[in-house]
Amino acid sequence: MAPEHDAIDAPTTRAGTMSRKWDRYASRGDPAPLWVADMDFRAPRAVVDAVTDVARRGIYGYADPDAATIAAATTRFREWHGVADADADAVRWLPGLNPGLNHAVRAARRARGAGRVTTATCAPIYPPFSYASRNDEGGKAEVTLRRTIEDGRARYDVDWDALEEALAREDVAVLLWCNPHNPIGRVWTRDEMTRVARLCVAHDVVLCSDEVWRELILDETATPFCGAGSLMDDVDGLRERLIVMTSPSKTYNVAGCDVAMAYVPDRTLRAHFARAGADKAEITPFGYAAMLAAYTDPSCEAWRQRLLETLRANRDRVDAALAEDANARALVTWTVPDASYLTWLNCEALVERVERSPFEHFLEHGVALSDGAPFSAPRAARVNFATTREILDRGLTGIASALASASRRDVSH
Amino acid sequence: MAPEHDAIDAPTTRAGTMSRKWDRYASRGDPAPLWVADMDFRAPRAVVDAVTDVARRGIYGYADPDAATIAAATTRFREWHGVADADADAVRWLPGLNPGLNHAVRAARRARGAGRVTTATCAPIYPPFSYASRNDEGGKAEVTLRRTIEDGRARYDVDWDALEEALAREDVAVLLWCNPHNPIGRVWTRDEMTRVARLCVAHDVVLCSDEVWRELILDETATPFCGAGSLMDDVDGLRERLIVMTSPSKTYNVAGCDVAMAYVPDRTLRAHFARAGADKAEITPFGYAAMLAAYTDPSCEAWRQRLLETLRANRDRVDAALAEDANARALVTWTVPDASYLTWLNCEALVERVERSPFEHFLEHGVALSDGAPFSAPRAARVNFATTREILDRGLTGIASALASASRRDVSH
Repeated sequence: MAPEHDAIDAPTTRAGTMSRKWDRYASRGDPAPLWVADMDFRAPRAVVDAVTDVARRGIYGYADPDAATIAAATTRFREWHGVADADADAVRWLPGLNPGLNHAVRAARRARGAGRVTTATCAPIYPPFSYASRNDEGGKAEVTLRRTIEDGRARYDVDWDALEEALAREDVAVLLWCNPHNPIGRVWTRDEMTRVARLCVAHDVVLCSDEVWRELILDETATPFCGAGSLMDDVDGLRERLIVMTSPSKTYNVAGCDVAMAYVPDRTLRAHFARAGADKAEITPFGYAAMLAAYTDPSCEAWRQRLLETLRANRDRVDAALAEDANARALVTWTVPDASYLTWLNCEALVERVERSPFEHFLEHGVALSDGAPFSAPRAARVNFATTREILDRGLTGIASALASASRRDVSH
Repeated sequence: MAPEHDAIDAPTTRAGTMSRKWDRYASRGDPAPLWVADMDFRAPRAVVDAVTDVARRGIYGYADPDAATIAAATTRFREWHGVADADADAVRWLPGLNPGLNHAVRAARRARGAGRVTTATCAPIYPPFSYASRNDEGGKAEVTLRRTIEDGRARYDVDWDALEEALAREDVAVLLWCNPHNPIGRVWTRDEMTRVARLCVAHDVVLCSDEVWRELILDETATPFCGAGSLMDDVDGLRERLIVMTSPSKTYNVAGCDVAMAYVPDRTLRAHFARAGADKAEITPFGYAAMLAAYTDPSCEAWRQRLLETLRANRDRVDAALAEDANARALVTWTVPDASYLTWLNCEALVERVERSPFEHFLEHGVALSDGAPFSAPRAARVNFATTREILDRGLTGIASALASASRRDVSH
């Protein structure tokens, strides 16, 4: 194995890769692309080898997972997501988490026999969570997370009264939950998860827990993970209402391979979930091969540890850059995420000055962030720091310049 | 270019490929796998090279088509599907035709502002056409195609009265049409297509024309293709109601790459189609690369011509085997398809003898065919002849043996 291929590195060029991240805003002055949630890093060597084997073979027909791949998926739910009795029959394959979120909303509606239901989420939230209710022509009950600020750093918690009020609504059939949470980077504690699960059971709401960021917890000693599936024994009635979803997509950077999976322990809910997802695209042979390698080749776990080191350093670099910048302290707040490669910038004071979306303002200063608007937070933006030091620094320079420019503006107009 | 890689050939082993076609029934005595619609042949060399380049690069994030790929798609609609003024803005990317059919039904319903609509199809029909109405919790108006039999050979035509009756129903919002038709292999004539289009317009029904088999017309001189998009100038009102879909998936054997495309000329219908498909999986970077190579590399057209030769020979071999078999002439009818690599077996007399599904009966005799039941034809089965001579002959031996066994049965019980 050539070690240079298994380092946490990025190709020197992205020409011809049809990368959404690199191409979408290229015509806007080639900004540092710190937006959409994939990484600039190459997938681990074992994953690349497995995908390349599929490619070379030249057979790209319909694929089904073999016994080893099914076992790898089941084991993942058991060992990484706390599903003690994980059973292969409860695993449902998906071509991505976006389809899965949509299937979950439809399944919850079908389980109720209702024509229209409302979906609860905790905002700010990854846009497909909100879109899933709209796609099913249903309603949205959005619970705003509570923010605490200290020295510019923001930390989010659940507003329990608001969450209970939402879940108690007759029309709310499903809570789309994100743990760790995108975009605010919280790993929810066991107490918090238990409380969420109990509320869902008390109000007969399906709990759909998207745990795709679980393997990108940056310090598991500080913020241990509690998978929703680990609570089934403690919370009576959870098993009948639970959908857990994950994918190698974020950790191993294979979102384009179209592979993800759900764990649905209850047979009836699983049938609804399968039926509601009968319109799905195929899981690709590349995806199955990538998952099998990512989940079973020991070199991938070593790669993940190196990745976490890189991401911790980048997270801290973003934090330091903002903390040391008087303009940042005056104009934005930012998260220091427990998990993921995402920093969430709240830009209320900035927006007051520049009178436009922070996304547009940052873009004009050479850095493409994710626009907060579809996250239900139009005065925020999301930074993706899963990139090389050089690109990250270019992005941080853009952010600093955007903030400096805003600071110089006269606000008395 | 190593010519042996660009011949119409199949790998000598399928071990480890997670092939649905090869693995699904392997435990049932390793039957000849002549079912699900992918081919045993390797994709063309230029496609394999393009996909392998993506694989080797190791960057599998979110992808968007580049200008060359968009141009290739638009050109395909213009040059192969008869859309004279094909415009890149009217192209909508899909991760497969199954999702696309589902989006079409939802789009037609949304365009009507209805809570529930009925979908018309002409049966027997590829199962996802029927499932799309069920997935949208709507109804199904199934028009049975008319069959004419001559010397055991079946040919299908439209039952125009029945089709008009179906389309005239108030609740019918969309016709899912298949041209060439899977499973019965008809290429519909310009007269037939015009009649279909006029009926859709007259009854305000969306015409969704799945033209994925268009590049597998086995003799275009005998059965020239008429794309629905070529009728827009002749049939007033068609433009506002038209969705055309295709993919390189069948012709170039890349169904597992998750790439397809729709052409929706009307802006309003296109917006409904996009909105109705917002739950879709990603189109993969492998898919975009495969499509670009398949549609632009001249060696792929040469490969396709060789493929057509192989498929014509196989079609005729299936036909001859059945025509020369007295049991076949007594117990089944079969199509000699204009297009595709599919022969449709109607097995009414066989079923009377064996009193079970033809699928089960053939499987027991060493050949896996597609079960007709989900095609709305439980007494039929579909033969996929896109394989090597050796495997095809093994399958034909299985079919002959199944028919001989049935012939020996006493029918007087």
